[in-house]
Amino acid sequence: MRRIYSLLLAGLLAGSAAPARAQAPTPPAKADSLNIRRIYDEALLRGQSYDNLRYLCQRIGGRLAGSPQAALAVEWGKLTMEKANCFDKVYLQECQVPHWVRGAKERGQIIGNKGKSIAVAVCALGGSVATPGNKPLRAGVVEVKSLAEFKALPDAAVKGKFIFFNRPFDDRLVEPGQAYGGAGDQRRSGPAEAGRRGAVGALVRSLTAAHDNNPHTGATNYGDTPAKVPGAALSTMAADQLSQLLAADPKLEFELEMSCLLLPDEKSYNVVGEVRGAKYPEQVITVGGHLDSWDLAQGAHDDGTGVVQSIEALRLLKAAGLRPERTVRAVLFMNEENGTRGGTKYAELAQQNHETHLAAIESDGGGFTPRGFNVETTPAVFQKVAAWRPLLAPYLAGQLTAGHAGTDIEPLAATVKPVALFGYDCDSQRYFDLHHSALDTFEQVNKRELELGGASMASLIYLLSKYGL
Amino acid sequence: MRRIYSLLLAGLLAGSAAPARAQAPTPPAKADSLNIRRIYDEALLRGQSYDNLRYLCQRIGGRLAGSPQAALAVEWGKLTMEKANCFDKVYLQECQVPHWVRGAKERGQIIGNKGKSIAVAVCALGGSVATPGNKPLRAGVVEVKSLAEFKALPDAAVKGKFIFFNRPFDDRLVEPGQAYGGAGDQRRSGPAEAGRRGAVGALVRSLTAAHDNNPHTGATNYGDTPAKVPGAALSTMAADQLSQLLAADPKLEFELEMSCLLLPDEKSYNVVGEVRGAKYPEQVITVGGHLDSWDLAQGAHDDGTGVVQSIEALRLLKAAGLRPERTVRAVLFMNEENGTRGGTKYAELAQQNHETHLAAIESDGGGFTPRGFNVETTPAVFQKVAAWRPLLAPYLAGQLTAGHAGTDIEPLAATVKPVALFGYDCDSQRYFDLHHSALDTFEQVNKRELELGGASMASLIYLLSKYGL
Repeated sequence: MRRIYSLLLAGLLAGSAAPARAQAPTPPAKADSLNIRRIYDEALLRGQSYDNLRYLCQRIGGRLAGSPQAALAVEWGKLTMEKANCFDKVYLQECQVPHWVRGAKERGQIIGNKGKSIAVAVCALGGSVATPGNKPLRAGVVEVKSLAEFKALPDAAVKGKFIFFNRPFDDRLVEPGQAYGGAGDQRRSGPAEAGRRGAVGALVRSLTAAHDNNPHTGATNYGDTPAKVPGAALSTMAADQLSQLLAADPKLEFELEMSCLLLPDEKSYNVVGEVRGAKYPEQVITVGGHLDSWDLAQGAHDDGTGVVQSIEALRLLKAAGLRPERTVRAVLFMNEENGTRGGTKYAELAQQNHETHLAAIESDGGGFTPRGFNVETTPAVFQKVAAWRPLLAPYLAGQLTAGHAGTDIEPLAATVKPVALFGYDCDSQRYFDLHHSALDTFEQVNKRELELGGASMASLIYLLSKYGL
Repeated sequence: MRRIYSLLLAGLLAGSAAPARAQAPTPPAKADSLNIRRIYDEALLRGQSYDNLRYLCQRIGGRLAGSPQAALAVEWGKLTMEKANCFDKVYLQECQVPHWVRGAKERGQIIGNKGKSIAVAVCALGGSVATPGNKPLRAGVVEVKSLAEFKALPDAAVKGKFIFFNRPFDDRLVEPGQAYGGAGDQRRSGPAEAGRRGAVGALVRSLTAAHDNNPHTGATNYGDTPAKVPGAALSTMAADQLSQLLAADPKLEFELEMSCLLLPDEKSYNVVGEVRGAKYPEQVITVGGHLDSWDLAQGAHDDGTGVVQSIEALRLLKAAGLRPERTVRAVLFMNEENGTRGGTKYAELAQQNHETHLAAIESDGGGFTPRGFNVETTPAVFQKVAAWRPLLAPYLAGQLTAGHAGTDIEPLAATVKPVALFGYDCDSQRYFDLHHSALDTFEQVNKRELELGGASMASLIYLLSKYGL
């Protein structure tokens, strides 16, 4: 995921979170409790999401939009949905996606006194241009802690330099996602701003609270800047090292060499599995995660878990004998990481087809132990949903918080305007340790945590499908 | 930890959990909110618990009571408390502890048709006797799923055999601790029951939901059985393999060889750091974890995390400028795993010294992301504590649940009867994957999760110390 946390904004829309165990206006039916227990039994005893995730991560691996692996992932997604044997139809939605490749060269070093060089861990930011001619680019370094600090520097100080954006996560924040939101502008806009003012490149501290030697990639956006300069992430250890050496020797240089490249757009697809509603087939509930991932690892928590949970949610309903009353679609969105072309296409088609969308659920915050859901809706609908808490709380999923639901379902709000958007909310402490780095592998996912999450999504779908909003 | 979950029992004592965000009878003071923020700032920005844990795990390692490593851990605990520079005094409490050693031989194999042997992953249960003469012991195998099923077998069926207790965790249970409680009698009593009826040994399925090849040890108790037979844990993969092979060939044999040994009791110590209360020095609040651990790994989540959090909690209070009004003791208990001699000694001395104990807090459920606290107290006191929830909830620690607080503080209830016992409650899904196995290492602990836990304990101490109960 690459979302920007906008809790405060969402809070204004949806009202502040109501008490965690408020009394339900109408007590939930005993049958609902039993049906949700059936969903969890199936998930915890006969779950298929963990094995599906293993295949996606270990046999396909990293799958950036436009890559051959992304094409394989589309095939895999369609086959996996068909084998799940719970959908009335499985189909693809075509979309054009950017095709950025990392290239073979990716190397950084600090050049100190008398040419002494120290190799450091770097990776190209997604979408970055290469160093000129794919050749080593050497320049002095100016360290700043924010875009504002950079903007305040005189032109002479930045021209011809690498701008080193080194603001760390604010560790005081309990939710690392908020720290990500607070530091993320450096990665997203740092290279564009640097190029605009005549710097030769941008070096960005990896967006993580972890102190290790793994650089974390992620999209950077040049916007309308004609002067595109390369942007690279430094591991947090490399960033600290560079900062310390700079303090001792402000004249040191950095040498960066990258051969990344933006190729022409490629054809790709969202993968959609649909279960037709038994009573209200015209009302659609969407559940999804994104199929693409960054290329440095296996895209396990970001967002293999959301993908397999979305398929599993529908399988669980069928296995538990719960035919949805409204139409439910599991959607594996393409290109969340560097374009949201799949999410945009899905929303456009929904509008073109004059569809009515009740709700959309996205899982793109990792596959950790559930807490509940972030909700974007009106206060009145929030209260209605809050009545379901007693059904979800025994499964650790009873916490509803007004907050950002997800990047791929967001475009729906601009077209068919679902009544509510839900983001699967889970334990968040480890997510940014792994996010967009080589550490985001299958082994980091716990089977039960993954299964509890999929079952909580299925339970919410069950309730939405039965009661509406 | 080796606690038996007794949620229902505790529920009867303490009343059922009140709503998670019930209105506080008296709104918490603004000053409390600011002071707790100070505690968290110190923990998250300048925390020392993670580095302390690294040392304990990686430089000392597994430290079963009576071992040289346990003696080192006592020295380390005392030094670490002194260096924390937050205690008025640091001292040791002597206690005698059992001294069981695993020995060099630990080997198991399935012997099939024509003597074909398959080595499987086993480990001796803590406290087990060796195989006779430390020699290989070969016998047929009878598989059962429960002690009741074993008791129902005729004597002829069990005599001279290995009894294979193979009841898995009940994966339907949301809390793995409840599954542990439900399967744990096989390990605790299986060898004793097997020996009582003439079996030659007990093979016990490891107490974990994980499906891997790591055997999980843990204490077994012979009680008053004179016929002590060896007890070994099989990894869950080995248990499944044995079960499948047995189904195909009920006459197969198992060969076990173990040279474990119970040596004479050793002298050891609880390590105690005390901060004298500024207003009510005669009222004691205890916070602790256990210093001993099983020998197969580093005792990271069980219970290095509880140890370093207990020291850190007092350091955080001092660093935040919050002198406790009541006396607070951090206690590193010795021998929780196979005797609770340290916890028992602490409770005895409290009684002998006519101490008044307000509350005790134990962290022995791992160092994962906080949820809150399990509480053992009266309904009236529970309501009083519940008023503090709004102060803890922003830090993910606002969930109070009636339930078992901890093994080491339990003996206090029989002597000086604290008004309330608290058990640090955190995300529980991964704990039994690691518990008592070779996987319980430093790398499994997340720095922020550990720090959030220590800060939640410090915050509870701050409130207990200021307001009493």
